[in-house]
Order: sequence, then C-alpha cells, then structure tokens
Amino acid sequence: MRKGDKTREYIIMQAANIFNQQGYFGSSVSDIMRETGLRKGGIYNHFESKDELVLAAFDYAIQLVNKRYAHAIEGKSTALEQLIAIISVYDNIIEDPPLKGGCPLLNTAVESDDTHPVLREKAREAMDRWLRFIRIIIKKGIKLGEIRNNIDVDAVATFIVSTIEGGVMVSKLYQDSAYMHSVIDQLTHFIEHTLRKTKH
Amino acid sequence: MRKGDKTREYIIMQAANIFNQQGYFGSSVSDIMRETGLRKGGIYNHFESKDELVLAAFDYAIQLVNKRYAHAIEGKSTALEQLIAIISVYDNIIEDPPLKGGCPLLNTAVESDDTHPVLREKAREAMDRWLRFIRIIIKKGIKLGEIRNNIDVDAVATFIVSTIEGGVMVSKLYQDSAYMHSVIDQLTHFIEHTLRKTKH
Repeated sequence: MRKGDKTREYIIMQAANIFNQQGYFGSSVSDIMRETGLRKGGIYNHFESKDELVLAAFDYAIQLVNKRYAHAIEGKSTALEQLIAIISVYDNIIEDPPLKGGCPLLNTAVESDDTHPVLREKAREAMDRWLRFIRIIIKKGIKLGEIRNNIDVDAVATFIVSTIEGGVMVSKLYQDSAYMHSVIDQLTHFIEHTLRKTKH
Repeated sequence: MRKGDKTREYIIMQAANIFNQQGYFGSSVSDIMRETGLRKGGIYNHFESKDELVLAAFDYAIQLVNKRYAHAIEGKSTALEQLIAIISVYDNIIEDPPLKGGCPLLNTAVESDDTHPVLREKAREAMDRWLRFIRIIIKKGIKLGEIRNNIDVDAVATFIVSTIEGGVMVSKLYQDSAYMHSVIDQLTHFIEHTLRKTKH
C-alpha cells in the first residue's frame, strides 16, 4: 500500500466515526481536520469533495458491520443458530458498537431518506444485501427442515431487520443496552416458537 | 389568540415539517425563511434561537403523532384491538405520514442521541410516554383476561415500539409502505398468537 493510500484509509476511518455520531449534515470538514490532525488541503488531497468522503466512509462503516455478521455466524451450523447469532450482533450496542455512534445503516437511512439520494441509494444497497443474507439463511433452514415452510420469507426477513434496527434506536436513545436485550429476547422467542418447525 | 401567537404557531408548523425531513443540523434558518415567507427578524421575533424553535417544533410534531394514536384507539374496546390499532398507525407511512418526513420520534432520536442532549431528553420523554401508553393497555388486557399474564410487560412494550420504528425506517429508506405492511402483519400475528390468552 502506498503512503497516500494509508492516509486515505486513515481519513476514512476517522470520518466514519464522526459521521456515524454527528450525521453527515452535522459534521464539518473542520471536525474531520480536528480528528485527523490534518489540514484542509491534506484532506482534499485525497477526496474531491465532502460527498466523496461521506460515501467512502459509509462503505467503510458497513464493512465493519458486515465483518461482525460474518464473525457471528462462524461455526454456527444450523439456520436457527445463525439467525439467533445475527439478531445478537447488537446485543451490547452501547458498550461495544461496530463503530462509535451505533448502527451506520440506521443512522444513514434516517438521515438520507429525504435529503441525499446518492447516499440513500448506498444505504438501500446495504439494506438489500442484509435482507438477502437473512432470506438465504431462512431458505436454507426451510430446505433442511429446521424452519416451517409455510412462512412468508420476505416478510420475516423484513420483520427481523426492522426489529433489530428499532431496538438499536431505542437503546441508543436511552444509552442503555437493556432495551436491545429485551428486543433480542422477544425476537429469539419468535424464532424458536414461530419459525422453528415443530417435530411431529 | 393574539396575532403574534398565530405567527408563532405558523412558524412552528412549517419548521416541524422541514426539520422532520432535513434534520435539525441539515436545516438552516434560510430554509425556514423560504418556507414561511418571513424574514429572519420575523422569525427571531418569536424565537430567541434556532434551538428554541427546534424544541417547539419537536413538541408540535409529537402532538400530531399522539393525536393519531388517540384517534386510532377510539371506539376500540378491547386491549388487543387497541394494540393492533396502535401498530397500524404507520400503515401508510409513505403516502400519509403524520407530517412530512415520517416519524418525528425516530428522526429526532437518531439525530440527537450523540449530538444534542436537550433534544435527546425531549425525545426520551416522548418515548417514555409512548412506552407507558402501551404498557397500560397491555396491563389492562392482562387484568381483563384478554392477554396472558406470564409475559414481561416492559419487554413486550419495547419490542412493539422497536418493531414499529424499525419498520418505519425500512419503509422510508425504500419509499415503500409495503415493508411497513409486512412488519404490521408479523406484529399482528405476534399479538394474536403470543400475547392473546388462549381459551381453556
């Protein structure tokens, strides 16, 4: 990696943390200068605009989240175990978020939906991939006879993702992971009792 | 009502719509001047600061949401009917939001949680009231024998609120109420099958 690439990566990393806490509109280039210790020129040397940095920072943030999901399902062999591992990724959202500020998909979706079409498009793509990831696991579970075959796979995937994101929102608001724990408990119950195929 | 009060109310109404779409950091006084047709002085004549207007606009927005909830449960006599009416309030979140931009509690919570302690406190109070409102209905349902008495009332209320807010987030991201419909279907199923006391 060239030295310039390393600086670029460093700026993205710092910017992602700032954007995820303060929002894109709430963050200025001065905030990024302060956090990185670089001058304005040192930043614009690597990015043509704040927007270019914003998009790169979102990609980086989503990568961090995806690593968590990949790590969570490692070694989990059944679809039900994998689903429960996925809903537990944000178990300690306050003490141990993937990056400061909580879930970048939640933050970016809410901020960009009425304001920033390009960023919203990126958030949609991240959401598409997340929903697809969960649908694939559910379908595998159905195929292997672990999950009931009379469920609406799309609806269940949307429900799981919505509940996780809402739980993050409430926990972040109160700065208390207990709300997320409650949500995970209820969602686990849903997976165990509504999705799991009962033995005959 | 004095003429000055009417202008104040008008500014709050317009500002609430702007803030709910663009966020507090993403909205400037110029945006509010453009939307209201007033000059800067005409706005600051009624509000000492952007912050004072921000807080008043949030109160106004939450009032609109609360009216929806009050209206939704009107004429619903059982606790289960009331819960289902509540989760259906955002059924057409894209076509018919309480105000432009979707749910002000979601938007404000996500924006303020790491940035604006006073606004976050207001959002917490609104969330406190919403959770309490749902807990009261659940407890009434338990008392009247409609809802199982072995549930964790706090956890269920958090779960319902989280799922609704997450559903709004996903629907708003895709600008498509179909996601919210899915979430409402799943949540209705949860209320009917997990909360409802089964007859013996």
